[in-house]
Amino acid sequence: MTGPEMHDLVRRLYPLCRSITGPGLRRTLEIIGESIPLEITEVPTGTKVLDWTIPREWTIRDAYIKDATGAKVVDFQDSNLHVVGYSAPVEATMSLGELRGHLHTLPGQPDLVPYRTSYYAETWGFCLSQRTLDGLVDGPYEVRIDSTLADGHLTYGEHVVRGASSQEVLISCHVCHPSLANDNLAGVAVAVALARRLTDPWYTYRFVFAPGTIGAIAWLARNRAHVDRVAHGVTLACAGDSGAITYKRSRRGDAEVDRVFAHVLKDRPHTLLDFSPYGYDERQYCSPGFNLAVGSLTRTPYGGYPEYHTSADDPDFVRPEAMEDTLETLWTAVRVLEANRRYENLSPYGEPQLGTRGLYGSLGGRSDTKQAQMAMLWVLSYSDGSHSLLDIAERSNLPFHALAEAADALRGAGLVKELTG
Amino acid sequence: MTGPEMHDLVRRLYPLCRSITGPGLRRTLEIIGESIPLEITEVPTGTKVLDWTIPREWTIRDAYIKDATGAKVVDFQDSNLHVVGYSAPVEATMSLGELRGHLHTLPGQPDLVPYRTSYYAETWGFCLSQRTLDGLVDGPYEVRIDSTLADGHLTYGEHVVRGASSQEVLISCHVCHPSLANDNLAGVAVAVALARRLTDPWYTYRFVFAPGTIGAIAWLARNRAHVDRVAHGVTLACAGDSGAITYKRSRRGDAEVDRVFAHVLKDRPHTLLDFSPYGYDERQYCSPGFNLAVGSLTRTPYGGYPEYHTSADDPDFVRPEAMEDTLETLWTAVRVLEANRRYENLSPYGEPQLGTRGLYGSLGGRSDTKQAQMAMLWVLSYSDGSHSLLDIAERSNLPFHALAEAADALRGAGLVKELTG
Amino acid sequence: MTGPEMHDLVRRLYPLCRSITGPGLRRTLEIIGESIPLEITEVPTGTKVLDWTIPREWTIRDAYIKDATGAKVVDFQDSNLHVVGYSAPVEATMSLGELRGHLHTLPGQPDLVPYRTSYYAETWGFCLSQRTLDGLVDGPYEVRIDSTLADGHLTYGEHVVRGASSQEVLISCHVCHPSLANDNLAGVAVAVALARRLTDPWYTYRFVFAPGTIGAIAWLARNRAHVDRVAHGVTLACAGDSGAITYKRSRRGDAEVDRVFAHVLKDRPHTLLDFSPYGYDERQYCSPGFNLAVGSLTRTPYGGYPEYHTSADDPDFVRPEAMEDTLETLWTAVRVLEANRRYENLSPYGEPQLGTRGLYGSLGGRSDTKQAQMAMLWVLSYSDGSHSLLDIAERSNLPFHALAEAADALRGAGLVKELTG
Repeated sequence: MTGPEMHDLVRRLYPLCRSITGPGLRRTLEIIGESIPLEITEVPTGTKVLDWTIPREWTIRDAYIKDATGAKVVDFQDSNLHVVGYSAPVEATMSLGELRGHLHTLPGQPDLVPYRTSYYAETWGFCLSQRTLDGLVDGPYEVRIDSTLADGHLTYGEHVVRGASSQEVLISCHVCHPSLANDNLAGVAVAVALARRLTDPWYTYRFVFAPGTIGAIAWLARNRAHVDRVAHGVTLACAGDSGAITYKRSRRGDAEVDRVFAHVLKDRPHTLLDFSPYGYDERQYCSPGFNLAVGSLTRTPYGGYPEYHTSADDPDFVRPEAMEDTLETLWTAVRVLEANRRYENLSPYGEPQLGTRGLYGSLGGRSDTKQAQMAMLWVLSYSDGSHSLLDIAERSNLPFHALAEAADALRGAGLVKELTG
Repeated sequence: MTGPEMHDLVRRLYPLCRSITGPGLRRTLEIIGESIPLEITEVPTGTKVLDWTIPREWTIRDAYIKDATGAKVVDFQDSNLHVVGYSAPVEATMSLGELRGHLHTLPGQPDLVPYRTSYYAETWGFCLSQRTLDGLVDGPYEVRIDSTLADGHLTYGEHVVRGASSQEVLISCHVCHPSLANDNLAGVAVAVALARRLTDPWYTYRFVFAPGTIGAIAWLARNRAHVDRVAHGVTLACAGDSGAITYKRSRRGDAEVDRVFAHVLKDRPHTLLDFSPYGYDERQYCSPGFNLAVGSLTRTPYGGYPEYHTSADDPDFVRPEAMEDTLETLWTAVRVLEANRRYENLSPYGEPQLGTRGLYGSLGGRSDTKQAQMAMLWVLSYSDGSHSLLDIAERSNLPFHALAEAADALRGAGLVKELTG
Repeated sequence: MTGPEMHDLVRRLYPLCRSITGPGLRRTLEIIGESIPLEITEVPTGTKVLDWTIPREWTIRDAYIKDATGAKVVDFQDSNLHVVGYSAPVEATMSLGELRGHLHTLPGQPDLVPYRTSYYAETWGFCLSQRTLDGLVDGPYEVRIDSTLADGHLTYGEHVVRGASSQEVLISCHVCHPSLANDNLAGVAVAVALARRLTDPWYTYRFVFAPGTIGAIAWLARNRAHVDRVAHGVTLACAGDSGAITYKRSRRGDAEVDRVFAHVLKDRPHTLLDFSPYGYDERQYCSPGFNLAVGSLTRTPYGGYPEYHTSADDPDFVRPEAMEDTLETLWTAVRVLEANRRYENLSPYGEPQLGTRGLYGSLGGRSDTKQAQMAMLWVLSYSDGSHSLLDIAERSNLPFHALAEAADALRGAGLVKELTG
């Protein structure tokens, strides 16, 4: 998938009113499923998942505030951000004074509509721009939210690319945000593109598209017995803004996935963050009972751009070339994970003679294949059973791919063998 | 005790002629004992203490140098710094030439009188300003030191605030310097103020007021069997000058007390020093046989200010607000030590639901209690048995007290339990 | 040996046409043997040494290119760099076009003749300046290399200074470069000077003068059974240019020899490099099967100066004072290695009384022997069985020799004892 194709997917998913349950979420997974087949899981309301309980399913049909003239001054049909997520139904007439406690604005960004939810405390509310609020007279207003909170299901989808190994790489995207493009439709689009690119990998790759927090918790609860299959992972979000890449380490801090991203990013502008228990669903995957090797890959992280969680996070805010760059970064990391092996130097006493094996320029002093020759020397020197190619890349400051190619050449010449386990 | 009250104590103690033994030391402990009850220990001359032997007790009544006119050109009654500490008695008439080998000045600070002692090599001498020395004619001079070196005792005092635990926090102040205010009457005053503030602590707090080196050695010799009760400690000196706080780590280097002070000081101007075997009585507490977790808390350390060990280190050099600041720093460290516990997250699989337990703002996006919420997430994430609250404070960069409050709230909600041992 | 004496040795060895085998190498070892007796080893052609095989011996008698007028435009008699090392014999007439593939120049340094070899792929060639090449007409040219490649031997020499211990310090110099002065006649001269200076050392010092790569490999192959006697070592090369000292760590990275050089160099301009599997014969000594504690001592390292491997690396490029400085640096490191011991403080509870043992100024406050006193306190504080004098030097930032003198004084006073093993 190209950047423009990923952007098309973002635009197509954008209008749906997603939440942590409900028809918008289900329709989102259907559309993703057109690109990569998804296995859909429906978890019934009331199901106990770890410390949590699956809530009632939320269906929203319409919502508005009408003024005395009958004009809709706030209208869900204009933007699904206008209604507080999980709002209970309401139908009432009230003054602006009574209404105010249910209205949310961003006084510092007066033209933008905020994104607000109230999943676990039943209430209702509207989000609007401060500019709109400032223009409202005393009322009365007709207020209506045509929603249902009823027993149903929480829905999530999985796409699996089987590899040679049963060890898994987890790519997890939250899919619970309504009309917000960078957070997280861009992450969804990049994940879809990655899934389509993978063919015959060594690891098994599992893509989880689930609502934030409760979705990841439901997935963990249902997969608790074999969660140790997850060898590496990232949550993927905010993948399309124009900022530099940010990688946030897993709680382990020095997991292979953490070191892979540090290596992949080191020669380009980027930010590396230590784990903190706030952010996306790495919070759940890295909770101390699981403590999975799951980091978080974003461009500008949550809360780090003014458009975050506002109506300004629309498809125009997301850039096709930024999603392509996120995809290529993730792809480079995947290739390092795939090729990161330990080798044993079978000729560890002194250097083996590379020239007679056709592995070395025959005339002393030439340097046209300098990096390749250095890579062979590094692989030979550190293939002592305890260093992986990534370890050697970190020490040598050579690019991983040069070392992987050197290891291949040396294996071909019988000078090293791959170690397993 | 307020800063002015500590300053009053400094002024009251200042005129006494303290030494490592003798009436001035004994009177000092009596005055301290008016504020906090002291248990006094008298160790007889000749007692073997570790590698040392308690010396004879020194009593000084008067000392002067009279010129040919009978005028006292140097007079102990003006300042006890004028006589070299532990000077043997002398009564003689001599020329300036003969006298010179017994005179100590500070040529680089010509108006100041130095502080000199000779505890372990019997001699006598006078200290005076270079200015006074320059004004002296050839003589003859009548020289008199009315002192006694005789069998007696070395005296030290202890004040103990009993806590729930028999593990001790040691606060040690040297009390052997005569009329020097910052070094160490300011330290004594801060220790007294801390002792008065402690009520029902978890640790037992032991305050030792002892002469430098030989006093600490005597204390260690007499408490050798149960010195391992000392879990944490500091020597306290130079607590009242206007410089920034300096904390010198214990010989262990990463003892809890070392990390507590680093945390307490990190957001204010300060100096952290690694251990060196020179300084105050941490030299003795940290000697390799004992290797106690005892650091050193000062403002400007020994030798670091021009007034050090001169007549300029008088009560005006000590500032009440600086002593208050030292006291508050020490108090903050004490509170961290008292509250530093390890907890176990009882709901370690995924995040527990904080909202339903009233621990979390119910409306997504609010941030008015952001730090408290972050603190709860950090405590939950790292309460895996191996991290203390201080560990979590170091990782999270949150203030310790926020984490301690979060741990209390989580414990109240049954989400964590305190670990012992 | 003084700098000028070392320089004389460089000048004397410079004209010989050394290679990895042959008469020039043998004659070089004879001349070194005039200064320090060498045990010579001759390894026959065809001998298997580790992964390598001893090649045929190369003898070169003459080589030239004559133009149509009979003038020698390139002449081995002018400089042995003119012939590619290990050139097979040739006698032919050819045009410049045919000859070109056998000619090596340095276009970027048009006045210099490069150094080239082809040990393991049989070929022939000439090295000349780009300036000379640019002046050549089309030809024909008479080309002659009067050389022999025939079964014979590879030669290396060893000089051993026996010490109290059978543990060895290895000093290894490559002696295979023809007329190149800094690389490596300067290294040879410094090694000779060091060998002559050592008397009754604690360690046994082994000096190996062997051709690069194949010589070190031959030495390792023949000494494989007892190579673990090598406790510390360096390869020594490029010892006479005017650049600062460079020390490259052994593959172990934190070997004692690595820490010794870091300590010795810390207060002067220098470069410390981590190990890389490229350079001099540390490549062989540090190959993962051996992994010896062998670093590399140079001034400007290989490839780091424009004269490197060119005719400009002549005796005038090497400076007597630079060789003296390299020698003194190595000598200082040797003295640290020799004196680096662990001691046990026999009076570890509190500080022992230094004054009564004559180890301390008797009058408090004097500082004329401050460093010596501090060194005694540091040695006492850290002589707990786990810290060597070098450990203490690193912690204290005191010079090693001050600590070694302090340890001597303390041992004399019965306060510490030396630990073995």
